[in-house]
Amino acid sequence: MLVGAIDLGGTHATCALVRDTEVLARETLTACGSGGLAPFLPRLATSIRNLSCRSGISLSDCAGLVLGFCGIADADSGRVLSTNGKYDDAPGIDLPGWCETELGLPFRIENDARLALLGERVAGAARGYDDVVMMTLGTGIGGAAMIGRKLVRGKHYQAGCLGGHLAIHPRGRRCTCGAIGCAESEASTWVLPTLCREWPGFEQSELVRETALDFATLIRVMETGDVIAEQILAHCLDVWAALAVSLIHAYDPEVLVMGGGIMKSADRILPVIRERVQNFAWTPWGKVRVVAAECGDQATLLGAVPLLEEFQV
Amino acid sequence: MLVGAIDLGGTHATCALVRDTEVLARETLTACGSGGLAPFLPRLATSIRNLSCRSGISLSDCAGLVLGFCGIADADSGRVLSTNGKYDDAPGIDLPGWCETELGLPFRIENDARLALLGERVAGAARGYDDVVMMTLGTGIGGAAMIGRKLVRGKHYQAGCLGGHLAIHPRGRRCTCGAIGCAESEASTWVLPTLCREWPGFEQSELVRETALDFATLIRVMETGDVIAEQILAHCLDVWAALAVSLIHAYDPEVLVMGGGIMKSADRILPVIRERVQNFAWTPWGKVRVVAAECGDQATLLGAVPLLEEFQV
Repeated sequence: MLVGAIDLGGTHATCALVRDTEVLARETLTACGSGGLAPFLPRLATSIRNLSCRSGISLSDCAGLVLGFCGIADADSGRVLSTNGKYDDAPGIDLPGWCETELGLPFRIENDARLALLGERVAGAARGYDDVVMMTLGTGIGGAAMIGRKLVRGKHYQAGCLGGHLAIHPRGRRCTCGAIGCAESEASTWVLPTLCREWPGFEQSELVRETALDFATLIRVMETGDVIAEQILAHCLDVWAALAVSLIHAYDPEVLVMGGGIMKSADRILPVIRERVQNFAWTPWGKVRVVAAECGDQATLLGAVPLLEEFQV
Repeated sequence: MLVGAIDLGGTHATCALVRDTEVLARETLTACGSGGLAPFLPRLATSIRNLSCRSGISLSDCAGLVLGFCGIADADSGRVLSTNGKYDDAPGIDLPGWCETELGLPFRIENDARLALLGERVAGAARGYDDVVMMTLGTGIGGAAMIGRKLVRGKHYQAGCLGGHLAIHPRGRRCTCGAIGCAESEASTWVLPTLCREWPGFEQSELVRETALDFATLIRVMETGDVIAEQILAHCLDVWAALAVSLIHAYDPEVLVMGGGIMKSADRILPVIRERVQNFAWTPWGKVRVVAAECGDQATLLGAVPLLEEFQV
């Protein structure tokens, strides 16, 4: 099956043509989620048309266009339901109508993390599994769940993709979602600078000299023997391990796929999560496999074909 | 539909005959989960036969026997999969064979919390809802989830019913399940005595004179103005509220039904959970209803008919 696919993030969008498990052509555009979706749509349509033109693949051969969206979307009707500071005008836009008019294609939308799970399942770390939890460590913590070959969506399309908003500390930090002590408000890229600055002893740490406090920096400083950096990473690993166990208890998967930008330091993270899951998850049937995502930034694009296939059955 | 139903707990078992949403006859037996299931089966069969005899309802008119089990069970094959200190011999028992031989009835098994959710849905607080989370506060914390009219079961029949084992504190207490800082190892009846004794200032509290430290006692002492008791209840409410929000984020329900023995003090608990869910759950579509269970100790029995119906479709 041939499809058009767009992975729409807050700071960039990747447009692509995908055949089965292969990305045939792709182009990444700079985006600005806070600027809204409506002014960005013409560039997205142009990009898809250009890809078609350059690759010699006619859009009329595509089964549809799939939009991977960084918010909550109704996969049945093609509407965006809710956003969190990115493309906040999207719920009011008739995306299926836009797609039909501009590209002449049927339209489907899905949350980007759910698409990434589908992508990892057809072409990556979750191949061969029908029961999967995906956890992405990045700016926030994303995720998705599949039970018995079906994406967990829920009544309002929220289930499974709010993994970063399971409570990990009942008296923790206020999260951007409004709740208290969510996993992502305890340990994610957006909270890391605050977490560091408020950590006891931060002023004595080498971290104080860093301008960009992300996890790559934290780990680099830790590797020089910095005790504070080590404590902060240990805290984050505690949070991620607790979340991993919670997600396993919630969705009962065979495999937990870990992705997201922070997993560039997988060698520091994966062994710890794996050991905690091994020791602490209550899975009398056996052990959940904990693996790194394999499709990288193509995962969401690769989820486009299985998504369309789901709706064509 | 007429069915036989057994609600098998660790300290007692209730046998019943149920027609649609009405318990026609019931009998409660003292049980001993640590003594195993095999020696108890003859008494269960006798009880069901006696109920039939006394009520003038022939067992041959029953569509089947449903066992609500306090552990993880395979609803498809009728096998117990795993236990946690109660009826630990059950995974080795051919329960469908026993039921056919002793009672001449088809057999179904399901986790007791999942049956309770079905019971509340046909005859209690979840009537009219297809997307439900149930949370039972008792000796431990139980639960179940339904999405789109289907019980959430998962690959190994664990999904949805380990709600009490979502992590609420990444460096919390060791739970009986093996994990760290589960909701039920932070706030449930089994942990309450330890929680109280380790609370700073416990020796100055009136609680020190109590022999049985359960939640009824805690609340009674708190109502005399005891500050320590108030702090401990506040801690437990924090944990339960965080869990409620997590379960809503995980399963995306329209209604959260709260049951279990601790809910005898619902007036102290429900308003707090309701307010926290209102303020902290991320549900842009609207507000999740938070309600008390209505079926009490009949919920599991009332789940028997909808369970059999599910498998007859």
